[in-house]
Amino acid sequence: MKFGITFFPTVGPEQTPAVQYFEDALRLAGLADELGFHHVRTVEHYFFTYGGYSPDPVTFLSAVAGRTTNVRLGTSAVIPAFTHPVKLAGKLAMLDNISKGRLDVGFGRAFLPDEFAAFGISLDESRPRFDEGIAAAKLLWSGENVTWAGEFYRFGPVTLLPRPVQQPHPPVFVTTARSVESCEAAGLAGHNLMLVPAILQREQIQERLAVFRDAWVRGGRAAGTEQIQFSYPAWVADSTEEAHRIGRYDEERNGAALGAAVSSWAKVTSAQYPGYEKLADQSTRLSFEAKLAENKVLAGTPAQVRAQLEQIAEWYGDDLTLSLAVHSGHLAAEHGERTLRLFAEQVAPKLSTTT
Amino acid sequence: MKFGITFFPTVGPEQTPAVQYFEDALRLAGLADELGFHHVRTVEHYFFTYGGYSPDPVTFLSAVAGRTTNVRLGTSAVIPAFTHPVKLAGKLAMLDNISKGRLDVGFGRAFLPDEFAAFGISLDESRPRFDEGIAAAKLLWSGENVTWAGEFYRFGPVTLLPRPVQQPHPPVFVTTARSVESCEAAGLAGHNLMLVPAILQREQIQERLAVFRDAWVRGGRAAGTEQIQFSYPAWVADSTEEAHRIGRYDEERNGAALGAAVSSWAKVTSAQYPGYEKLADQSTRLSFEAKLAENKVLAGTPAQVRAQLEQIAEWYGDDLTLSLAVHSGHLAAEHGERTLRLFAEQVAPKLSTTT
Repeated sequence: MKFGITFFPTVGPEQTPAVQYFEDALRLAGLADELGFHHVRTVEHYFFTYGGYSPDPVTFLSAVAGRTTNVRLGTSAVIPAFTHPVKLAGKLAMLDNISKGRLDVGFGRAFLPDEFAAFGISLDESRPRFDEGIAAAKLLWSGENVTWAGEFYRFGPVTLLPRPVQQPHPPVFVTTARSVESCEAAGLAGHNLMLVPAILQREQIQERLAVFRDAWVRGGRAAGTEQIQFSYPAWVADSTEEAHRIGRYDEERNGAALGAAVSSWAKVTSAQYPGYEKLADQSTRLSFEAKLAENKVLAGTPAQVRAQLEQIAEWYGDDLTLSLAVHSGHLAAEHGERTLRLFAEQVAPKLSTTT
Repeated sequence: MKFGITFFPTVGPEQTPAVQYFEDALRLAGLADELGFHHVRTVEHYFFTYGGYSPDPVTFLSAVAGRTTNVRLGTSAVIPAFTHPVKLAGKLAMLDNISKGRLDVGFGRAFLPDEFAAFGISLDESRPRFDEGIAAAKLLWSGENVTWAGEFYRFGPVTLLPRPVQQPHPPVFVTTARSVESCEAAGLAGHNLMLVPAILQREQIQERLAVFRDAWVRGGRAAGTEQIQFSYPAWVADSTEEAHRIGRYDEERNGAALGAAVSSWAKVTSAQYPGYEKLADQSTRLSFEAKLAENKVLAGTPAQVRAQLEQIAEWYGDDLTLSLAVHSGHLAAEHGERTLRLFAEQVAPKLSTTT
């Protein structure tokens, strides 16, 4: 397994001012780089405490690039529906150059009705806009004198500058949430996978990974060359009690932030998002203890978290890359720092040699 | 006078790979920060060697933010016509936080037909899109529960996250090119001014500054609180011969890059861009010697450049902020470094105390 960190802020100005959040996040990103972690990722969201401090992941990752030398930089994800492909491909190519080829590009469909409404985009167009945006970006990165005549965009012939460092283009990941079909499509297209295990059952995840790995090979690629990234909130401490105490506190606030962001699903349905209207139903949420028991969060002493990782490897494979969410903004950054240090020293001491 | 630096790359992969360009630019930006320069700026352009390495100035400036502590960070400019205001205001607010309040936001209309064509935007809509984009961004930064119903965008009520550090919003600049009316509108609106002296006659610049300064006061603001930024290509060396040799070499290539980018103006006219069709006429371009004689470029020994600055102050006022373009990418970065060091040590040795 490889281990990186992901930033998913779930605070607003009332909890933690953004200037403080970013100071802490940049310091933790620098520490992750020093300690040998594999990557730093962040999200794209708007308006709500649920990720809203990060409306543009490239902006944060570029600041990380400016003060790190080894970690890979991942978007998890950028949303093609909200940005013109020339703009999106262009700024990602800049980041690939600024970081000297350390960029991994995760693309997402987005799923919050209020975000789509602000951009004047229909939820029902989410899938075709996602597909067109990825295809256009890949062509802009890899081709010259590109002409594009899609459903949503027409341009060209143009040659994008700057050219990406990684050829033919940076590794592409897709964030798939629920559908098996998405996992199959990703594998066939040679797109790597980002999954959020918290929102699926173990058997559902296993099914999706099997479908993805099979499609990857059917798409003509060598087995084992695919990349799969899972993200987990993580709290490591010297005592079980301390790790669970801060984990429960933090995770309850993460849940409340999600709840506020998805509340408009109570009023909306879209054929493109089957079942999402249930997201607004708070009663279906798991308790912290249930999440811990099902390995949907990592919390405990180094030995306990190591045991969780062994279970996760057994369930899903030992070739996963895990992203640890270590700083939502609800806890002092020292907690995130402790998690990173204990992780590097005691949970996965071979960190820097395995990445 | 205050002095900063601006990055306007005019190279493509054949001249200088982007990975090298950005490594050099980030090093020079860090040096400018150490030496006490006032700001680091960069542009937004696409496809051509004329600025095309920088399709997203925020991405570069965020990397600069990650490794500097004092310089202000300026866009010169972002183009509202090419980015949704929620996206634009959001990423700029992130940069304001990441840099702890060091952001100056320059907005531009853009003027290259091929850029408008790629984004599917009519040149004739340039002015109203510029105005609407600035107004929407300012409202998103300063207001909560913002509802917007403009000609090009409708959204809300939404509250932008993150909130900018600088209240009510970062200082706003507009890049005005040719029209006196733009300078008057900027002053009345309380927008600061970015001018490119190379493209105007001395008397034209003086007229525009007078109109701007008068409008600033008529708009209800105190005289002397307005900011005016000029940008100049700059080459300082120990000998006149060396400074002029590299300056001529570099500036000829800058001119060729501009020529290629504006060539499509030979086939296009727009009522919104009167006279721009003449841009494609190469014969109107000044020689390096003529530019030097008219103080449209800065080149020479420290004493010679100091004399140029005295003349510029006499013509336009001694309260200007000057942006030195020190790295087009055509020369080794050591030349830009030498210009910065000689400037800080001998041209304006009070740099750090006057900024």
